[in-house]
Formats: sequence, C-alpha cells, structure tokens
Amino acid sequence: MSERPQPVRSLPPGGTVGILGGGQLGRMLAMAAARLGFRSHIYCPDADRPAADVAAACRAAPYEDEASLAAFAAAVSVVTYEFENVPEATARYLAARVPVWPPPVALAVAQDRLREKSFLTDAGVDTAPFAAIDAAADLPAALRAVGLPAVIKTRRFGYDGKGQAYVADAAQAAEALAALGGGGVLIEGFVTFAREISVIVARGADGAARCYEPVWNVHENHVLARSIVPSGIPAAVAEAAKDIALRIAERLDYVGVMGIEMFLATGDSGPRLFVNEMAPRVHNSGHWTLDACVVSQFEQHIRAICGWPLGTVERHSDAVMANLLGDAVDGWAELAQRPDVAVHIYGKSGAAPGRKMGHVTRLYPRGSNPCTSPLQP
Amino acid sequence: MSERPQPVRSLPPGGTVGILGGGQLGRMLAMAAARLGFRSHIYCPDADRPAADVAAACRAAPYEDEASLAAFAAAVSVVTYEFENVPEATARYLAARVPVWPPPVALAVAQDRLREKSFLTDAGVDTAPFAAIDAAADLPAALRAVGLPAVIKTRRFGYDGKGQAYVADAAQAAEALAALGGGGVLIEGFVTFAREISVIVARGADGAARCYEPVWNVHENHVLARSIVPSGIPAAVAEAAKDIALRIAERLDYVGVMGIEMFLATGDSGPRLFVNEMAPRVHNSGHWTLDACVVSQFEQHIRAICGWPLGTVERHSDAVMANLLGDAVDGWAELAQRPDVAVHIYGKSGAAPGRKMGHVTRLYPRGSNPCTSPLQP
Repeated sequence: MSERPQPVRSLPPGGTVGILGGGQLGRMLAMAAARLGFRSHIYCPDADRPAADVAAACRAAPYEDEASLAAFAAAVSVVTYEFENVPEATARYLAARVPVWPPPVALAVAQDRLREKSFLTDAGVDTAPFAAIDAAADLPAALRAVGLPAVIKTRRFGYDGKGQAYVADAAQAAEALAALGGGGVLIEGFVTFAREISVIVARGADGAARCYEPVWNVHENHVLARSIVPSGIPAAVAEAAKDIALRIAERLDYVGVMGIEMFLATGDSGPRLFVNEMAPRVHNSGHWTLDACVVSQFEQHIRAICGWPLGTVERHSDAVMANLLGDAVDGWAELAQRPDVAVHIYGKSGAAPGRKMGHVTRLYPRGSNPCTSPLQP
Repeated sequence: MSERPQPVRSLPPGGTVGILGGGQLGRMLAMAAARLGFRSHIYCPDADRPAADVAAACRAAPYEDEASLAAFAAAVSVVTYEFENVPEATARYLAARVPVWPPPVALAVAQDRLREKSFLTDAGVDTAPFAAIDAAADLPAALRAVGLPAVIKTRRFGYDGKGQAYVADAAQAAEALAALGGGGVLIEGFVTFAREISVIVARGADGAARCYEPVWNVHENHVLARSIVPSGIPAAVAEAAKDIALRIAERLDYVGVMGIEMFLATGDSGPRLFVNEMAPRVHNSGHWTLDACVVSQFEQHIRAICGWPLGTVERHSDAVMANLLGDAVDGWAELAQRPDVAVHIYGKSGAAPGRKMGHVTRLYPRGSNPCTSPLQP
C-alpha cells in the first residue's frame, strides 16, 4: 500500500498551498495556512466557495478540466484536499506535477467502502462484519455472513447517512438492495456499541505521527451533533484507539491529518473497538482543537503537507463542540453572548436544512467538563 | 469629545467588513472576521499587503483618492482601520457614507501627541509632564516645566521610538530640537518606572466595555520584544490600570479595541500609573489573546464594530508573546518544533531589520508562567 511519489521538503513561509474543495474545511485549512505565513489557492467547481474568501487565489473549474488543473499545479507548491470525494484521477493528474498530500491512494481507499473495509481487515483492524453484494443473487449468502440486523450501503459517495439503509430482516434487505440499485453495495452487520468515538491522527512527512485524545461523538439524524472531550472512555481503550489510528496512517504511508471513526462495544469479554470509517482529511470531530489546543487539526495538516514538524497535540481545556446545522446558525446573536463559547460561522450563502453552517465550542477548565460521562467498563 | 455619527445595528454573518490598512493587524482582523462568517475588504496603498491574502477583496489605492474611497464605502457594511496614521480626512470622508469604528475622533487624538496628552489630562489621567515647543524660543520654559532628563518627540507620525530623542541636558535638548525641525514638537519629562504594562480594552456599540488583564511589556531598542501575562503587578494596580483604560474608552465614546500603554512607577508614595500612549486599534501587546483566550482582541474588535455583544476577556492559560523581528522569522523551523508554542507568521515579502514578521506565543497552565516576576510594591 506504500506510495511516496515525491520527496517532501519543508516549504518555507510565503509558499502557496493548493486546496481542492472550497467548503468550510478548506476555509479553516486556508486560515491555518495563513497563520503559518502561507498563501492558499483554492480549486473548486462549486458556486458557493466559502474558502475563497480567506484565500489569496481561487480557481473555479471542474475536477476533470486538465488545462485548469495543470495551471493550478504550476501556481502552487503542494496540493491537498478538503474532502474524500475528489476524483482519484484528479489527484493523480496533479501528483504527476506537484506533491499531493495525503497520498492519492488514501482517497482511493476511502472512496470505496468495500476497499476501505478490506484495507482495514488487511491492517488487522476490527470492523463490523461485511460482505459485498454485486447482484441480488448474492444477498442470501451475504446475510448469512454478516447476520441481522444489518446496514446496506452504497460502495461510493455516501456521507452523513446518505446512501444507506438499516434492515431488520431478509425482506427489508431485498427491498433496500433494490432501492440502492440492486448491486454494487456492501452489507455490514449491525454493531451494538456503547459509545461512538473518533481519533484525529496526524502524520508528518518524516513519518512521525501523533494522535489527539479520542473524542466522544454524538450523532443525531446520522449527522454529527456534538463532540465531547474528554470522551469518558477508559485510558487503556483510548490508547488502543490511538494505536489503531497510528497503524492505519502508517500502513497508508500517510502525510496529513485523518479522522478515524470507531464504535466502542462493551460486553462480558471486555471493551472492543470497531473502525467504522476513515476520512483522509481534517474531520468535523476535530474542530474542537481550534479552541482547546495550541495547534489545531487544521494547522497540523498544513504542517504535515508542508514538511514542517508536527505540533503538540495536547489540549489546555476540556471542550464540547456542537455543529450549527441549517437555520441553527440564525441563533448567532444569542450564541455570541454566551461566556466561554467560541463561535465559528462558515460564511456559506444558503442555510439548507441540515447543512453545516458553523459550529460552536464551549471550553471548560481541564477536568471540569460536565458533559463527560465516564463509560462503565 | 462624544461623537456617534451613525447608529450601529448588529451586522449579520455574511456582511462585509472594510479594513483600512493591509499589514499584519489587518490580516489578523480579517481572519477574526472570517471566523464569525464575515467577508473582509482591504483598502491599502502599500505594495506589500499581507492582509489581502486572507480577504475576499482588496483595493489598492491612496488614502486621498476619493473615487476609490467612495467605491470602497459602497462595497462594505462597516469600516475600521488597523493603524492610527490613516488620515483623519479619509476616515471622515468614509464616515459620511458608512459607519466607521473606532470613531474618527480617536484617530485625531492619537495622531497628535500634544492633543493626546491634553485629552488624557482632561480625562483626569496621569501622564508624564509635558509641554509643547512650537519654536526654539519655547525650549527654556518647556525644560523648566518638565525637568530633566526629558524626551523630545515629534507631534505626529512617531512609532516604535522613531521621531524621538532622549535628552539629558539643555544643550542636548537644543540639538535634538534642531534635528527634529526646530519646533512643532512635544517635550516630556522622563518617568522612571518599575514596569511597563498595557491594557487592551474593548468597548461595544452598546457602551458595554471590558478589559483583558494587564500585561507586562518588555521593549528592546524601542520595539516591543515580549508581553508577559500575568504581569506580576499587584491586583489593586491591575484594577486601577483597567479603570484608566475604561475611562479613556468611555470619554471617546469608543467602539472597538484600544491598546493603552502605561508606566508603573513605584516609590515611597506607593505605585502610580502614567499613560504613555493610546493606540485606537488592536495592539501588539494583545497578540497573546489569540492563543490564551476563547475570544481574541481581533475578534473582540470585529464584534464591537459589527454591533455584536463583546465576548469573554478571560484567559485559560498564562502566556508569553515574543515578536519575530527581521530575520528572526528565518528561525521558523526551529520554533515550529517547540512544544506549547503557537507560531504566527505574517506573510510579508521582505524581512528588513526590525520589521515585525511574525510572533510566537508560549502557553503555560494558569499560575505556572516562569517569566512572571511579582513586582515588589
């Protein structure tokens, strides 16, 4: 799986970082780059590009436009991406011209849930039991392999609960399979978990890697609602979660920041971690690091892709990060009045229901987070 | 002195903040504005404009170009400035078209050292003894009034020790006066002080005002080298310093953030504070708030000028901020390796000797700053 197409040298301040994607993650990456003295150049096909407002330059063009990509590559010193659905071909085209980090193979693995699960299994990491379903005829064997209840998911382009269906029995499974196109999907056994956590891991160009402390994630309607740190999980489990994240980053010869979502199951045989998803980019569950750490996940990513030493992953405060979804952002005036709350608004043009419009992070002195609830082992 | 030319309403996220000046203070203001969902539009006559790299728009034009100013006013919802040498006429021209905060009168006061000292005296605030010298004939009386040693300063456009001379006797005073043009200057009695401190005060459009904790400033070659918090001064003196800053802001009917530099003298009659200088803008000695507080001085300024409620001024950490002057910025690779150090580089094109190229802030858990040295009363 190792791939290191270009040598990485430290990029001095004043250099230009190219970012594929113009959303809030690109915006926060661009601000982190600016803090270190870099310029950002955004490449984005979308009309709404909040990242462009904090970047020195922006190119609006499709990911398939090779002339635009070539001009972009010529204008920047390194390229990164803010989301995992950038076409792998785009990343490879650019990587032939300019360093691209994280490595394009990480995109390829993350874009295909079957490839992702297989990669994780090969890495010796536990996941929910899974099976590929290429056609309806594969369903009975797949159900026997993973058990019920289960979740059927498209192999590609799913996020925030889109492109997946929970199925309780064989009839529902057949129905969901048909609705998702009859094949080319994955079925996963449903994991009953006590807590959902994630680990933000950063790996530098020199191979040094560090993890922020795992966080407890609370989802609502399949979208991250809150991240809580400390997570309340036992210290040994937190160390195990970090080890898993480090193992994944190492195996991909990764450079940059990655978010690894995990389920923590508890039971008579003790706690057990299952990796649910890996995102080869800065991650929503790491936004709290902007306010609770000296070096945020965004700066850590910029440091890594620019060949700088990683920064500290220590935190000075406890934190609860809450997303502002859809018209929740209209509450900015009230939120701005709360003490100890950092308000972040992404400058997007429209607040469609459920759209991530901003987030708030409430800080507490270390050891005093009232939302942290210790998990009973 | 009160002046409130336009009503202030809360500017919702998505609005555009106009910033006069394109240096590092404008750059950090633009990033703070972006964090709250605003766009920034920079107006700057200089060729090197690091603020433009993080702004949605930038207009390069002289401060006297009324057509450009009118177009700028039409493109923004509120105007502010990053330095106090913006011509007052520019601020007044804009203020007839769009809200300008801090109020232009604050510029007028801060631009003229004689007017500044007179304003402070009228406000009942102690300063060094001072006298105006319009011509050489005024020198003997001025020297009798302020005593020796003294400092002769130009009335306008001095900063970082430029345009001033320390004089120990009458002959040196005559020489310095001649070198500074023979008149139109101010002479100040030299205050022997135990510690130089500053207070960053924020005042909202609603008149609510808050001060960050005073900091201890260490100057080298007339330029701020380090700011240390806590400052080590007695609590009662810190409260007195904040009261002075609040009184100044109130008297100017100020909206925004202001930096007030003070000398703390100790002696048999107890500690005494003298205001040295007021800067109607975000201030170098407040840069530590970016990393040690939930809400930085830059965000506080944006909140104030946009009619938002002020944020908290509490800090979660102790801090030492050190400027990176001139080629000190070339040490970025080593600085980036230090734990608990936040690196800020301004993206300027040339590192002339003494030029402010960036800063670093070292954080310590509260109560553990090894640089804080209690001042003996």
